[in-house]
Amino acid sequence: MKEFAIIDHFFKSRSHQRKDVVIGIGDDCAVTDIPDGQSLAITTDTLVGDVHFFKDANPAAIAHKAVAVNLSDLASMGAEPAWLSLSLSLPNADEEWLETFSQSLAEITDYYAVQLIGGDTVQGPLSITITAHGFVPQGQALTRSGAKPGHLVYVTGTLGDAGAGLDIMRGKLSTSKTSEDFLVKRLHYPTARLLAGTALRRIASACVDVSDGLLSDLGHILESSQCGATIDIGKLPLSVALKEAVGHDDAIRYALDSGDDYELIFTVPEELKGNLDIALANFNIKATCIGQLTGANSKLEMKRDGEPCDEAFFAAKKGFEHFS
Amino acid sequence: MKEFAIIDHFFKSRSHQRKDVVIGIGDDCAVTDIPDGQSLAITTDTLVGDVHFFKDANPAAIAHKAVAVNLSDLASMGAEPAWLSLSLSLPNADEEWLETFSQSLAEITDYYAVQLIGGDTVQGPLSITITAHGFVPQGQALTRSGAKPGHLVYVTGTLGDAGAGLDIMRGKLSTSKTSEDFLVKRLHYPTARLLAGTALRRIASACVDVSDGLLSDLGHILESSQCGATIDIGKLPLSVALKEAVGHDDAIRYALDSGDDYELIFTVPEELKGNLDIALANFNIKATCIGQLTGANSKLEMKRDGEPCDEAFFAAKKGFEHFS
Repeated sequence: MKEFAIIDHFFKSRSHQRKDVVIGIGDDCAVTDIPDGQSLAITTDTLVGDVHFFKDANPAAIAHKAVAVNLSDLASMGAEPAWLSLSLSLPNADEEWLETFSQSLAEITDYYAVQLIGGDTVQGPLSITITAHGFVPQGQALTRSGAKPGHLVYVTGTLGDAGAGLDIMRGKLSTSKTSEDFLVKRLHYPTARLLAGTALRRIASACVDVSDGLLSDLGHILESSQCGATIDIGKLPLSVALKEAVGHDDAIRYALDSGDDYELIFTVPEELKGNLDIALANFNIKATCIGQLTGANSKLEMKRDGEPCDEAFFAAKKGFEHFS
Repeated sequence: MKEFAIIDHFFKSRSHQRKDVVIGIGDDCAVTDIPDGQSLAITTDTLVGDVHFFKDANPAAIAHKAVAVNLSDLASMGAEPAWLSLSLSLPNADEEWLETFSQSLAEITDYYAVQLIGGDTVQGPLSITITAHGFVPQGQALTRSGAKPGHLVYVTGTLGDAGAGLDIMRGKLSTSKTSEDFLVKRLHYPTARLLAGTALRRIASACVDVSDGLLSDLGHILESSQCGATIDIGKLPLSVALKEAVGHDDAIRYALDSGDDYELIFTVPEELKGNLDIALANFNIKATCIGQLTGANSKLEMKRDGEPCDEAFFAAKKGFEHFS
């Protein structure tokens, strides 16, 4: 099957359609319109076979994750997703693989009401690059740099699950089937916290998503905002499955160090805590306060249930770094 | 060198800066603003090592070409370029390679006044994906589908040069050093015809760029516009270097079949020919009328200097197709 036939058959006809897309797949460019008063948020993530996912992984999971990690970046800016461009590099035109991949892509684009507007299909090593576009009202983007000492630190959902899921996939960890399924699903089918991101506009002072791990990603806020933080590791939100799989102490270590959870870490001025509680309740969003920012530039202090805790406990691996 | 350090050192500080970029490299997303009355044109192209370029090619040429092929897609829509996202997959963090690549990227972004707004840097097989964004006044995008029987067919610049350059690189072709340099430069440092694209707004009825070859790319217009065409191959614009390298007849074959020239093919209603001539003269753009559209759906008829010509002459190879 040739390049144009692949695009027509598997991608063009299947994507969710939006009214703000003037020209979609099939011309030299897509052409789109932006609503008045909105800025455009743009992000790109690449997933490489056997670096970011197993080459023989279910193509449905690969498609889901490639989209979700990009939408998660939009979520962390408080943006509402609109369009995706997809570059797909494949060793060969495996029609069964393409069928499963494109069906899953169609499902997730439908679910989030985003349109696939174009991209490129080339022969090469298995790799997927998505550029996602979303809208955010002008001046309301949630950056990494707006946090101030005293602001409260929150995280959505639970942490460490995807890291444990990866160790299960690698055969390094096992637990009950129910918990394994939950943890592996958290790895392969992450949820982009888009609703949380939009609910946090004009409330959060800074926000990032957890791709590399809590310590690493909170570090981005601290560096950009020139703050420090005190985190109470006794307050980290941990799933029942993770605690069952590795026990409470190791669950904390997974929560601190392992990535791929795609939860949001955000900071909130104390005087906006009431607004936050209302917004979270209105949208039924679970978020946990895990600490507070300090003036100690980029310094991260750890407590456990209010008490200082042993440095050795953390001997913290850093978040996953390419070229490290 | 780690991922964040690579981005900071080689890319963040070097890019051209634009006022419509609210947030550039360094947060989860870039955030940008679109002028009132403009639509956004978006295109993605991937270049894979040893598929689209030689892995040991000069990184300056790779960067130039990766940007130029994307800007060429914007040109063919009549769009004015604004921002680029770059996904760079590298087997290792070769600092010398990155230095040359990023300097070349900085030069071409400066030249075209486009800003690198973000992307991703991952470890993997050598591959470059760029998503380019540009502006086009609402309703004025040049599509493939607006052509009608009777409209004149034009092409900018000269055709076939890059194909001959590729054969020189492969050791299949040789000629004088001056001509070889010219032809190889046309392959490695293509020019995006952005000025021509914007000049053609409200004049051209359809437009594409020559990435796969004249026959293949004109075919896109014929298919989308449901037209046929008569092309006079005696009128194809050929460079002196190409004719010196391969003689007139083979120069015509290169011009018909070989890709990578990144010239524009466009169609113009006869009643707008006067407007076209003025626009071309005002902007000092070279374009050649090579034929006329017909009502014969997707049928391409060839003449030579007005006379029917031998079918065997063309036994046309098709444009480069992935997965063919």
